[in-house]
Amino acid sequence: MKWLEGGVTAAKGFEAAACAAGIKYQGRTDMALVYSAQPCRVAGTFTSNVVKAAPVLWDQDVVKNSPYAQAVVVNSGIANACTGRQGMDCCQAEAAAAAQALGVPASSVLVASTGVIGMQMPIDKAVAGIRALAGDKAASQEAGLAAARAIMTTDTVPKQIAVQFEVGGKTVTLGGMCKGSGMIHPNMCTMLGFVTTDANISKELLQKAVRESVEDTFNMISVDGDTSTNDTLLVLANGLAGNEEIIEEGEAYQTFYEALLAVNTYLARKMAGDGEGATALIEVKVEGAATVREAKILAKSVICSSLTKAAVFGHDANFGRILCALGYSGVQFDPEKVDLYFQGTKGRIHIFGDGAACDYSEEEATEILSEPEVTILVEMHMGEACATAWGCDLSYEYVKINADYRS
Amino acid sequence: MKWLEGGVTAAKGFEAAACAAGIKYQGRTDMALVYSAQPCRVAGTFTSNVVKAAPVLWDQDVVKNSPYAQAVVVNSGIANACTGRQGMDCCQAEAAAAAQALGVPASSVLVASTGVIGMQMPIDKAVAGIRALAGDKAASQEAGLAAARAIMTTDTVPKQIAVQFEVGGKTVTLGGMCKGSGMIHPNMCTMLGFVTTDANISKELLQKAVRESVEDTFNMISVDGDTSTNDTLLVLANGLAGNEEIIEEGEAYQTFYEALLAVNTYLARKMAGDGEGATALIEVKVEGAATVREAKILAKSVICSSLTKAAVFGHDANFGRILCALGYSGVQFDPEKVDLYFQGTKGRIHIFGDGAACDYSEEEATEILSEPEVTILVEMHMGEACATAWGCDLSYEYVKINADYRS
Repeated sequence: MKWLEGGVTAAKGFEAAACAAGIKYQGRTDMALVYSAQPCRVAGTFTSNVVKAAPVLWDQDVVKNSPYAQAVVVNSGIANACTGRQGMDCCQAEAAAAAQALGVPASSVLVASTGVIGMQMPIDKAVAGIRALAGDKAASQEAGLAAARAIMTTDTVPKQIAVQFEVGGKTVTLGGMCKGSGMIHPNMCTMLGFVTTDANISKELLQKAVRESVEDTFNMISVDGDTSTNDTLLVLANGLAGNEEIIEEGEAYQTFYEALLAVNTYLARKMAGDGEGATALIEVKVEGAATVREAKILAKSVICSSLTKAAVFGHDANFGRILCALGYSGVQFDPEKVDLYFQGTKGRIHIFGDGAACDYSEEEATEILSEPEVTILVEMHMGEACATAWGCDLSYEYVKINADYRS
Repeated sequence: MKWLEGGVTAAKGFEAAACAAGIKYQGRTDMALVYSAQPCRVAGTFTSNVVKAAPVLWDQDVVKNSPYAQAVVVNSGIANACTGRQGMDCCQAEAAAAAQALGVPASSVLVASTGVIGMQMPIDKAVAGIRALAGDKAASQEAGLAAARAIMTTDTVPKQIAVQFEVGGKTVTLGGMCKGSGMIHPNMCTMLGFVTTDANISKELLQKAVRESVEDTFNMISVDGDTSTNDTLLVLANGLAGNEEIIEEGEAYQTFYEALLAVNTYLARKMAGDGEGATALIEVKVEGAATVREAKILAKSVICSSLTKAAVFGHDANFGRILCALGYSGVQFDPEKVDLYFQGTKGRIHIFGDGAACDYSEEEATEILSEPEVTILVEMHMGEACATAWGCDLSYEYVKINADYRS
């Protein structure tokens, strides 16, 4: 597997575009299109929130019932959530406009929105934007990057990546972009992810790969514990790589799965590290847990602890907060058996063991906690299972962004 | 029932004291004593965290196995949690010192600590502090207030209250003090609560009253979602009011229960409003839920939402975040049926209904959200059950306090 520059336009046959439709933001692009002239198999995962945004309801229907997909229309600024009947009408109008402008069935058009909840979309502006996107679409790397920028809200950097690998002698490409900072616990600005590939793979296996890879990637990040109404990950596969269709879980599927996992891991880490107001990416590795489920619960409990996050922001080795978060996770364990380490680029230090603090150097600990990526390693000594979760520190800037966000 | 000035020394026969033992803080009091020459029945509830501080383990044993209690020794600054064998030795040394200085059995001495986790207690200083406390104890209102001050960590105000009521023609007094900001989801600085009463009540009913009243009071507040290793609520009853012993759940028990509920509600609200960095108390009332359990889950989900808390700090009527938090709570409901109101001293406004925003005035909403107490009222239209939760907004100051706390 080879890493590539690029994102949603890296795979054969995919085009993208961005435009400034004036949905809510001024002076920046705020709509994006991903398009494939070749019909695509599509798989998706969506927010578990009971309150689902209109585009989520729309896409769930397309993924389930449409034979194929050809376009994704995305806007930033307004989430089109808590918008009632008018919100669904907007999705329909967007799909109809894209269908007409691109010459595809409306049932092959997916839509996604991110931004303020409860505000109605300006449908006319969205429709005009879609026409502009259809006219501008291109297969270039620049077009892919422009799309990744247009879907940003409070993100500080666009997030995209692509990989290339071989399946049965054919070169397959898979690339993606995302915005936001979470899925199980995302930032209100929503996690949106779009992955495109020219792999030829059955719809069932594509959906399986998406569902399973999400469990270890996007579902293991958290910025603030709030699960958005809009979270969406869509994967489109148009088959143009020409490989024999992957229809069973053999070597070809495994190769494809590993590439998808690599791309999703990269994008999930980028999201966590670009969480609102973040100054550091925090990685929590739990090893030696009794089961994978418990390892995940423990890792997530630490990554979600406001106090742990604030301590990392302050570069303070306040390890008691980590023990505390493990303790209230709901998993039963003996605190006397837990070993805790901080790990940085220069190695790791043992912080806690045998039920009490180790004799570590506060200076060294502070040094590790001042790096842009901080790893907290927890060894439970209960079994063989492990899990990794990603998040970010809690800064003044997080509060600032979220106290002012709507205005 | 009559509200009184005062706290732990309001009831007959209770004395208190405070001193500056230099446990960790300098230039302020950091140890407190509550004492009754008359042996007390004692009930308690403790943190659900798997990682329990040494004083929690000590007190659980006393509450369960000792025939009575006579003293509570509390320190702020160091939590005596994650301290292994040495931590338990410290509890024992503190109890022994108090037993000697007060002339009571060591098994009747309760201990409590709040502050930094993982740091060992300076046992000599604690023992010296206990001797000073024993020499200074007094039944005065001032002594009670001094104790309420000594147990503060990042609290900005001491929190105490007392009430008086009649049981079988006898006047009974019940008073308490607390510090910190939570129980299910407390501030790392820990929720500690101490209530004293001269009521004559059986140990079983005292424990029952404590357990049940906590469910609707301390367990319904949250500051930051982190459940401390040290949370403790102790209630001591010395029987000096002279009422006939309450041994069954009749009218006398009900009167006592309501007084305890009133005191615990008062203290819980005070804690929530004094959450770290708080500028406002947030009250979330959920009405018309299908069950009380679901009403509590919904109310707590909103009170714990960082995004809702940040929006209140910004005086921003970002109601979508409230809908979002209801939606990810785990409770199933139809968003189209939910009505949402903001309620202030000048009345309430309807914000959301029929699945979309109401036509409300942003100015009026901002005005309500700028008051020191903000009520969010959610009507689910699913049944008759209701619940109230309390918390506070999320401010820059919260981050500041917790990034710097240990240093």
